Amino acid sequence: MLYYLSEYESLFGPLRLFRYLSFRCAGGLITALVIGFIISPFIIQKLRLFKMQQAFRDAKEVGKLADLHAGKHTTPTMGGWIIFIAVTLSTLLWARPTMLVAVSLVVYLGLTLIGFADDFLKVTKRNSKGLPGRLKLAGQALLTVIAVLMLYTNKGTRADLLELWVPFMSGPDPLWVMPVVIAGAFFFIVMAGSSNAINLTDGVDGLAIGCTVTAAMAFGIFAYCAGNVLISDYLLIGYVLGAGELAVICTAMVGAGLAFLWYNAHPAEVFMGDTGSLALGGLIGTIAFLVHQPFTLVIVGGVFVMEALSVIIQVGVFKRTGRRFFRMAPVHHHFELGGWAETKVVIRFWIISLVFALAGLATLKIR
Amino acid sequence: MLYYLSEYESLFGPLRLFRYLSFRCAGGLITALVIGFIISPFIIQKLRLFKMQQAFRDAKEVGKLADLHAGKHTTPTMGGWIIFIAVTLSTLLWARPTMLVAVSLVVYLGLTLIGFADDFLKVTKRNSKGLPGRLKLAGQALLTVIAVLMLYTNKGTRADLLELWVPFMSGPDPLWVMPVVIAGAFFFIVMAGSSNAINLTDGVDGLAIGCTVTAAMAFGIFAYCAGNVLISDYLLIGYVLGAGELAVICTAMVGAGLAFLWYNAHPAEVFMGDTGSLALGGLIGTIAFLVHQPFTLVIVGGVFVMEALSVIIQVGVFKRTGRRFFRMAPVHHHFELGGWAETKVVIRFWIISLVFALAGLATLKIR
Repeated sequence: MLYYLSEYESLFGPLRLFRYLSFRCAGGLITALVIGFIISPFIIQKLRLFKMQQAFRDAKEVGKLADLHAGKHTTPTMGGWIIFIAVTLSTLLWARPTMLVAVSLVVYLGLTLIGFADDFLKVTKRNSKGLPGRLKLAGQALLTVIAVLMLYTNKGTRADLLELWVPFMSGPDPLWVMPVVIAGAFFFIVMAGSSNAINLTDGVDGLAIGCTVTAAMAFGIFAYCAGNVLISDYLLIGYVLGAGELAVICTAMVGAGLAFLWYNAHPAEVFMGDTGSLALGGLIGTIAFLVHQPFTLVIVGGVFVMEALSVIIQVGVFKRTGRRFFRMAPVHHHFELGGWAETKVVIRFWIISLVFALAGLATLKIR
Repeated sequence: MLYYLSEYESLFGPLRLFRYLSFRCAGGLITALVIGFIISPFIIQKLRLFKMQQAFRDAKEVGKLADLHAGKHTTPTMGGWIIFIAVTLSTLLWARPTMLVAVSLVVYLGLTLIGFADDFLKVTKRNSKGLPGRLKLAGQALLTVIAVLMLYTNKGTRADLLELWVPFMSGPDPLWVMPVVIAGAFFFIVMAGSSNAINLTDGVDGLAIGCTVTAAMAFGIFAYCAGNVLISDYLLIGYVLGAGELAVICTAMVGAGLAFLWYNAHPAEVFMGDTGSLALGGLIGTIAFLVHQPFTLVIVGGVFVMEALSVIIQVGVFKRTGRRFFRMAPVHHHFELGGWAETKVVIRFWIISLVFALAGLATLKIR
């Protein structure tokens, strides 16, 4: 909204600043950070008051891991609300209300509600099942339909929705134009895949939010570049009209994520819960799709991919051979059980995540 | 050195890549990271073998803090050598051998030796005094004289040495031309100040190296911009011939720092010691001076400034009133004694450090 202040530039010169995307990105980051800091103590207190903690944080946390994680059973969950409020308010303030921004926020809201339902069932029913997987997927499918309809019925975004950009082979023309159903299926895979992968990553203090911050930084830069005619042309990436505004969401995610990490750092005072992880994952997936960088998400979100793959491998190997491939999946528990301290697992995964983010950004130059 | 491969471009086209600074920055980061990963286990093993641990890590660590840090007395120190080897080898490989690069590496080597002497005395004499402060300062002064002579006697760098750029007021002409003695004194203040500030910051697992990585990232970007005619002109910052090569040192510092953090993450398997902290601080100070951003270092290195100020305030207040202003200085111990877990202090200081780095980068746009 603050963008419109720039229209009064003639009254007060410095208001022109609100026209600059880089200024609004910085504003989005700081605002989300400050909102996060302000509301965190209040929300954490309320969550504690309502006993929003998962009695059984993870049904599989038996034996040694349950010992390692003793003391976590009283930590409140659903801290994803902190991030949601900070990101959404900051975005509404600093981004121009384009269709791409609207789609991102709708998906983000929808997934936050799905994650919240999941957390709420876990807390009130005192088991770790929560919302059945089918229902989660159905919710993600519904959000896909809504998002695709919004993009398809809007003239300015229809063409971009149907274009598929394959990395390392970009040229001035889109390589493929997909039928809308294929585009929708593709959106679903990217959005729901990312959503569920970050959901799996969330399991030790600070892990998911730290990796989310590095991914959001990388996609902030991608969105900024994709939305700029000159830069996208120079880098040979697809220009996407209005993608720059998504950079504001990314920097807001960075700010909100850092504020959340302040309280989520080991020993955590709050967990994001599925309220946070499903939603942040879906938001990053949505932005990756909208800025035409879905394949780069596999690199930038390398840690999320690792975590998801570890579960797939574990389940697959177990079904075939009856033996465990990892000591435990997702893979962060494998290292914990292997003797790495929780803090070491987290910081090392952050390092990997930062290297993946830089590697993803490096693809900008090798086209 | 690899830069010169680009001269054989006519033989093999892709060799032209070695001419691109961005490619060499990426190469510097990856190379330092890989070297760091390869040599760390070996060096840590040797340090442990030679019992290079500080029996009394900190003479002031009495009472509660000594309890909190129990178990650290057998952790080997002098891990700064890991970072030094990784940064130096990677820089020699990927940067062009300009005078600015040579000055940076000479200062870095000198401070590493001073820090090593300090650590070595602490270890062998089994007390926490080490090298007397006067001798450290004398060493830093000597390095200043060498650096200024190198810069002043070299035609290509003399003019840049004497120019003082004041932030937020840049124009096409340097604001001040300093006499060489003033420029030398200024270099000493920036280099030695930064060196001693990071030295004070080093006290809990991962703190100093994490903040060094964020500062190195920021100065990598500053160096890249200052060394590019078009970008420096667009951003209204002073163009410094050859500053771009310093970006390679910065990205090498990021890579080496991340590799070191892998082993320095809580619970640390190695400390950097003064071998690391004095040297990294001086290197960052030197680069900040050489790219004409000494004032921005106060923002980007905000955590280091906080830490140094806390010591100054503590000592000053104690001398006047006989009372302690902080529970303990440097300020990270104040929060530890206040009940924050060590990991929480570190991660929260990293968050502050990242925000400072982003704030420093934001100054690029508000000139």
